Amino acid sequence: MKLGVLHPGAMGVTIGAALKASGHEVLWLKEGRGEETVRRAAEAGLVSVPAIGELVGQCAGLVSICPPHAATAVAAAVKQAGFTGSYLDANAVAPATARQIHELIGDTFVDGGIVGPPALRPGTTRLYLSGHDAEAVAGWFSDDVLGVHVVSGPAGAASALKMCYAAYTKGTSALLLAIRALAEAEGVGPSLLEEWQRSQPDLSARSEATARGTAAKAWRFVGEMEEIAASFTARGLPGGFHLAAADIYQRMAELKNDAAPDLEKVLEAILHQRRD
Amino acid sequence: MKLGVLHPGAMGVTIGAALKASGHEVLWLKEGRGEETVRRAAEAGLVSVPAIGELVGQCAGLVSICPPHAATAVAAAVKQAGFTGSYLDANAVAPATARQIHELIGDTFVDGGIVGPPALRPGTTRLYLSGHDAEAVAGWFSDDVLGVHVVSGPAGAASALKMCYAAYTKGTSALLLAIRALAEAEGVGPSLLEEWQRSQPDLSARSEATARGTAAKAWRFVGEMEEIAASFTARGLPGGFHLAAADIYQRMAELKNDAAPDLEKVLEAILHQRRD
Repeated sequence: MKLGVLHPGAMGVTIGAALKASGHEVLWLKEGRGEETVRRAAEAGLVSVPAIGELVGQCAGLVSICPPHAATAVAAAVKQAGFTGSYLDANAVAPATARQIHELIGDTFVDGGIVGPPALRPGTTRLYLSGHDAEAVAGWFSDDVLGVHVVSGPAGAASALKMCYAAYTKGTSALLLAIRALAEAEGVGPSLLEEWQRSQPDLSARSEATARGTAAKAWRFVGEMEEIAASFTARGLPGGFHLAAADIYQRMAELKNDAAPDLEKVLEAILHQRRD
Repeated sequence: MKLGVLHPGAMGVTIGAALKASGHEVLWLKEGRGEETVRRAAEAGLVSVPAIGELVGQCAGLVSICPPHAATAVAAAVKQAGFTGSYLDANAVAPATARQIHELIGDTFVDGGIVGPPALRPGTTRLYLSGHDAEAVAGWFSDDVLGVHVVSGPAGAASALKMCYAAYTKGTSALLLAIRALAEAEGVGPSLLEEWQRSQPDLSARSEATARGTAAKAWRFVGEMEEIAASFTARGLPGGFHLAAADIYQRMAELKNDAAPDLEKVLEAILHQRRD
């Protein structure tokens, strides 16, 4: 089949590579993308097309992988260009957002959620699918790297699963950094580390690894945290955990181009943007 | 020395027992306390006095261990009764609350924070102390069960440490239960457990243990979460994590008399109090 990926970012390119390894020709839309994307897509053997009309005209199926705030706009652009094939939205969006995109696209919509890092090695990354055509879209993938699982339930179920999963992993990462910032502001950082050493021995190293590993991606997590907060409030549950996490990641967004800043630099970013 | 404990609840009685084991006579105020407290205090060999005037008149030092929302009122009552000895507030309060109580009590105030469960076995529980007389109050304790540590810094530092510590432990417990509730509401509970089994293998058991172990105490955690939220906002950091946690624990408060409800019952309590 000819399939398209919008867009081959760090995660998207590995999904494109999985489709290519499954025997498909994989196209992507060059219009408006940067050098880094061009390089990544070329390395993965994806074929660029210049305009959305061409992508939509050639592909039997499309996969949307973009920052959560852009997911609806990408779907709308594809629809407007006349696409009627299978449309997999694999973004970190709230179930309600997935259902909105479902309405926009129609019956060929499949809801997806990705758990794990970019799929570079087997066993690290799962793509969950739900909705009417989930089994058919699962059939696109036959490579060994990406795990593909159909979640029972309507469109929205795969997104709900993704939201629940990231609610803990990315929520607790933000919480840990907020706590380190509070301890710093209160002058009890060393005492907290001593107590953690006694009773929570993984938290010191985890907070340092989180600072280093998250800072460059934090700008992307803001929208995801807002989608998670919306997922909770839509079910009458408190959204505050993840609005607070969005706030922390927003303060870290200025570190976007800093590959692996140390904890001290991350705490400085969090604390100098205090909201009194 | 003659020392007093206000009040010998589940935690307080073990602090009283530690003082008694350190060679002090330990008094407590019977007025207004329930049968359970009378039984606990008697078992620990603490001596009841009928009125606050007597407690204040006899004791060279007092320890306040009560729910966070009552900490200021307990201090005010003691001050009003004319107490001028050493006053240890060992409650889970924000640094700013500790500083308010400091102003109320005066120079004999010592700030404390307890990390861990009631001190029944050695190595489980630490009492942190800060402020001018922290070393002197640390000298009250010479038993083997309770660990007593002086935190450098002014009054408020021990409370800050306690807030930072509980921010993670009790914050993530509430978050886990909120996530289980969201997964339940979205119909993806089994899928989430499967994914956790793959990549976060401790979360399933931890969420079940949290439900069982926390439900009966949740009513007490509400005030503590509010103090933690206030600790964050006082430093220009987001308080939302712990206001959300307070919301979850408030919904669980109806399980106060249920010794160890299962997860299903806890999720039901959380979900039937949805705020739409």
